[in-house]
Amino acid sequence: MIDQKLVSWGRSGNIIREIAEYGAEQAKIVGPKNVYNFTIGSPSIDPPAIIFETMERLRATVPPSELHAYSPAAGLPEVREKAADFLNRSFGSAYRKQDIIITCGTSTALAAMIKVLLSCGGRAMTFTPYFMDYKYYVESVGAALTECPTMPESFQLDLEAAERALTPDTMLLIINSPNNPSGVVLRRESLEALARLLERKQREYGHPIYILADEPYRDLVYDGQEVAYIPSFYKNTVYCYSFSKSVSLPGERVGFMALPPEMDDHDDIAAAAMAVIRAFGYICVSTMWQRVAIDCIGATSDISVYKRNRDRLYGALTEMGYSCVYPDGAFYLFMKTPEPDAEAFCRRAMKENLLVVPGDSFGTPGYVRLAYCVSPEVIERSLPTFRKLAEEYGLKS
Amino acid sequence: MIDQKLVSWGRSGNIIREIAEYGAEQAKIVGPKNVYNFTIGSPSIDPPAIIFETMERLRATVPPSELHAYSPAAGLPEVREKAADFLNRSFGSAYRKQDIIITCGTSTALAAMIKVLLSCGGRAMTFTPYFMDYKYYVESVGAALTECPTMPESFQLDLEAAERALTPDTMLLIINSPNNPSGVVLRRESLEALARLLERKQREYGHPIYILADEPYRDLVYDGQEVAYIPSFYKNTVYCYSFSKSVSLPGERVGFMALPPEMDDHDDIAAAAMAVIRAFGYICVSTMWQRVAIDCIGATSDISVYKRNRDRLYGALTEMGYSCVYPDGAFYLFMKTPEPDAEAFCRRAMKENLLVVPGDSFGTPGYVRLAYCVSPEVIERSLPTFRKLAEEYGLKS
Repeated sequence: MIDQKLVSWGRSGNIIREIAEYGAEQAKIVGPKNVYNFTIGSPSIDPPAIIFETMERLRATVPPSELHAYSPAAGLPEVREKAADFLNRSFGSAYRKQDIIITCGTSTALAAMIKVLLSCGGRAMTFTPYFMDYKYYVESVGAALTECPTMPESFQLDLEAAERALTPDTMLLIINSPNNPSGVVLRRESLEALARLLERKQREYGHPIYILADEPYRDLVYDGQEVAYIPSFYKNTVYCYSFSKSVSLPGERVGFMALPPEMDDHDDIAAAAMAVIRAFGYICVSTMWQRVAIDCIGATSDISVYKRNRDRLYGALTEMGYSCVYPDGAFYLFMKTPEPDAEAFCRRAMKENLLVVPGDSFGTPGYVRLAYCVSPEVIERSLPTFRKLAEEYGLKS
Repeated sequence: MIDQKLVSWGRSGNIIREIAEYGAEQAKIVGPKNVYNFTIGSPSIDPPAIIFETMERLRATVPPSELHAYSPAAGLPEVREKAADFLNRSFGSAYRKQDIIITCGTSTALAAMIKVLLSCGGRAMTFTPYFMDYKYYVESVGAALTECPTMPESFQLDLEAAERALTPDTMLLIINSPNNPSGVVLRRESLEALARLLERKQREYGHPIYILADEPYRDLVYDGQEVAYIPSFYKNTVYCYSFSKSVSLPGERVGFMALPPEMDDHDDIAAAAMAVIRAFGYICVSTMWQRVAIDCIGATSDISVYKRNRDRLYGALTEMGYSCVYPDGAFYLFMKTPEPDAEAFCRRAMKENLLVVPGDSFGTPGYVRLAYCVSPEVIERSLPTFRKLAEEYGLKS
């Protein structure tokens, strides 16, 4: 009576959460200090002080029955306006209040836009490695997700592969830079070349091809690395932002999407997005948290901790002989496993209470993801175990 | 390129919100005191003090990076356990932690369960009048919603009509008591009779028929009215609860659903629900608010204000000659319009800055909904306008 595909999706669960839960159980047995949990991308750095100052200010000045009331489904008008203003100041764009939809992180935005843009059929495409939930969003509307490979080792865009992967029924591409799970920031030139390719394909296929720019990690970049703003050179881009990582509020679910006024079918898409958000049962985003977050837009947690973690972990692991993708952003390190079967490596590491996630879950076998948004001590304590495994696998040391 | 059905849904918008927004605009022109806004069911009574005390306690004792971290998709284990314990204490049920899924209000629960239970086809049924979003949840998965009439005037269940409306492909019924928009509490005997009818139909059709019990208003009843707990006499019931109304936190989106362990296909449904929640882009319910709400379960806002509002409004309107359904619960009054066209009545009332919602939006023409979760002064100030309209329509006074 129940679609067995849904049942098996539900049963297979989320491997990241499962390994994390195993870690929590192990911590009870061997002590939390002896479990090195690199599984989940939940920031260990506290939100910046301005978050709580803003919350206090709102609680002191707005009556509770207003601060916790329903907000309109697309967000409070003043919150939408502030988001538009911020983008316009930052990127020279021309968003209006009505081009912004406040969402529960980028996940809502992606799930809803995928249903909208594939509502008359077609397929979606993304680049490996990618956040595994994309597949659920696409397949749950009865469509297929094309996984386009990127360049070996660097994980930068492979334009020739992209051209081969595009088909006349490709309606949208999901682009995630800085990338989860690789930490790679896509280079501006390659994104601009992709935009030119898409412009050509739009003409060839006779329909728009949209980019969903999934950018929860935009503010988490190190050494002044640039994150190209895709809508500035490709108008059919829906920009999706989240406050989850930048201000360490992943559990509170606030973000937004921005639809350029000049985007093809703008008004139809904006209207259909509201219908889908309603049909999914999203009444509104937390009224309090959307007000808090928007008043702190531009602030970030102290990301210098992540940078130090990255430097320490990347340095130590490569020195041990592991091969890693150099991460310019996010808080993930993508490490080649010393045996081809990444899941086998994960199981072996689990026995040592070292918890990492196989790249298979991100469409990229032979790698593991290390979420280094942990306290620096976790990294230090984990290194002897990484070294032990490196020696067992006979890596150069 | 975009499904025009979605576009038109999005364009048609939410009539309640639209009238409410008109009211907000009018308030700027004639002053907020001169707009009598009965459109939106957002509580005017503050949350009980325990909500904020709990929030302060959690903020003082839980590190921010934990209090605002991701929670598991089904909710924090301790939150699920507390919800199960509360239900078991209150209703003598035997829910386990794993039978509870924390949701963003009942809307998520309904939208997700409708997709799950109709995933192999079939149709849904509900009783008029009903909350309009049910139709979106059902139609967006490509299915149809049967609107079964209730008894004239009383809006209690009409068992004969229900039997006629049931078809071999009816997979689920949505029951909302206390009811939005009528305020009616369905009588236990009629619900038990419905349960017996469904038991018989399940055998006849050879498949389970599920009840989704949408109960955000369970705690808002007056004069000791009983709200029957449907799962206690019909095992295939998914109980859906929200903290939105009981503790005045509608904008913060916390609720849960409970799946009886003995329910048919329990494990498949629980697994598929998690897949759908994930596919809709719900990563988790606000981690902070789920912890706050569960620690206050059983508390309510000071609902004596709503009772006084009900008594005053019902008394005054019936005295003016209006015909109203007596509301035992929720904070809605369903009033028969003095002309058959409820929308015409609404437009006429709008000219007097009296804002009410036509019953057509709830599948029941000829009525308007008055959300009386307003301050008592709004009611007092509105009465002369109601009286003026009654006189214009020639009602007895």
